[in-house]
Amino acid sequence: MEILEIIKNRRSIRKFKEDPIAKDIIDKLVEALIWAPSAGNLQSRKFYFVFNEQLKKELSKAALFQTFISKAPLVIIGCTNERISTRYGKRGRELYTICDVAASIQNLMLLAHSEGLGTCWVGAFSEKNVSKILELPKHLRPIAIVPVGYPAHIPNPPKRCSKEDAIKFII
Amino acid sequence: MEILEIIKNRRSIRKFKEDPIAKDIIDKLVEALIWAPSAGNLQSRKFYFVFNEQLKKELSKAALFQTFISKAPLVIIGCTNERISTRYGKRGRELYTICDVAASIQNLMLLAHSEGLGTCWVGAFSEKNVSKILELPKHLRPIAIVPVGYPAHIPNPPKRCSKEDAIKFII
Repeated sequence: MEILEIIKNRRSIRKFKEDPIAKDIIDKLVEALIWAPSAGNLQSRKFYFVFNEQLKKELSKAALFQTFISKAPLVIIGCTNERISTRYGKRGRELYTICDVAASIQNLMLLAHSEGLGTCWVGAFSEKNVSKILELPKHLRPIAIVPVGYPAHIPNPPKRCSKEDAIKFII
Repeated sequence: MEILEIIKNRRSIRKFKEDPIAKDIIDKLVEALIWAPSAGNLQSRKFYFVFNEQLKKELSKAALFQTFISKAPLVIIGCTNERISTRYGKRGRELYTICDVAASIQNLMLLAHSEGLGTCWVGAFSEKNVSKILELPKHLRPIAIVPVGYPAHIPNPPKRCSKEDAIKFII
């Protein structure tokens, strides 16, 4: 698949098959996360790969009871890492480390789609509850939950705004 | 190129050739930005494509005099859009819209690399000065500057932290 095809055909998947994900694909997901760029190459991010059924259920409760999350064989939680990002001060903690995590997650979603896997970027959840469930150390802040699994339903592409609205050219 | 190859071989490019970028490739860059996911599909982001020599010079000054920025034929500025993101309140303004922009930029960088173009994600700049240079409306906040052009020098890959440091598995 051409990269632009991967980018355009990726959808947010909210219904998963039970099929597990093979070890070699998990390894690729890890590589995709690690090789995203980061501010000053500090890589101020950390990812939790949750396969545990009980924890997945608790995570979906913490995400406003979006139960589809727990149905995915793998749930990834992306965290900023304040111990590292603070090297760039307030801007590091409030901007760079979020971008570090987000760039990794976008890599992950594209890689997953190219392998026939579905993902969904979930941002609406209680950070406090997720931190408690995963027993996160204080310097890690969970900012995204991404269930990963084989899609049981692929929705139609949602509308995108026009190029004119998205981009301004200055010649 | 396989997507994992694109992800792993992309480098931060800080030296560009003068060669312009063809119109059809610019179009692909635009598509890559637009088709990134966003919180609630609100797409709370806007991108400026700057080709103007004088403005590029001013932008590189606003970015702590990183002069390589102005040498790229195209400089893209990624902005959060507070008018839209505020629909999700504080979390929308301080988290979701940043992720919306970052996901787009990661798409852009991968697409660019697959076309033989180089990019560099620049976060260190004066938002106030960039806003003034581009005459941004108040609801747009510039959070990333990305020069785009054909690489004149490709650096070695910087070190990445180990899989064990980056990921925690919970079985």
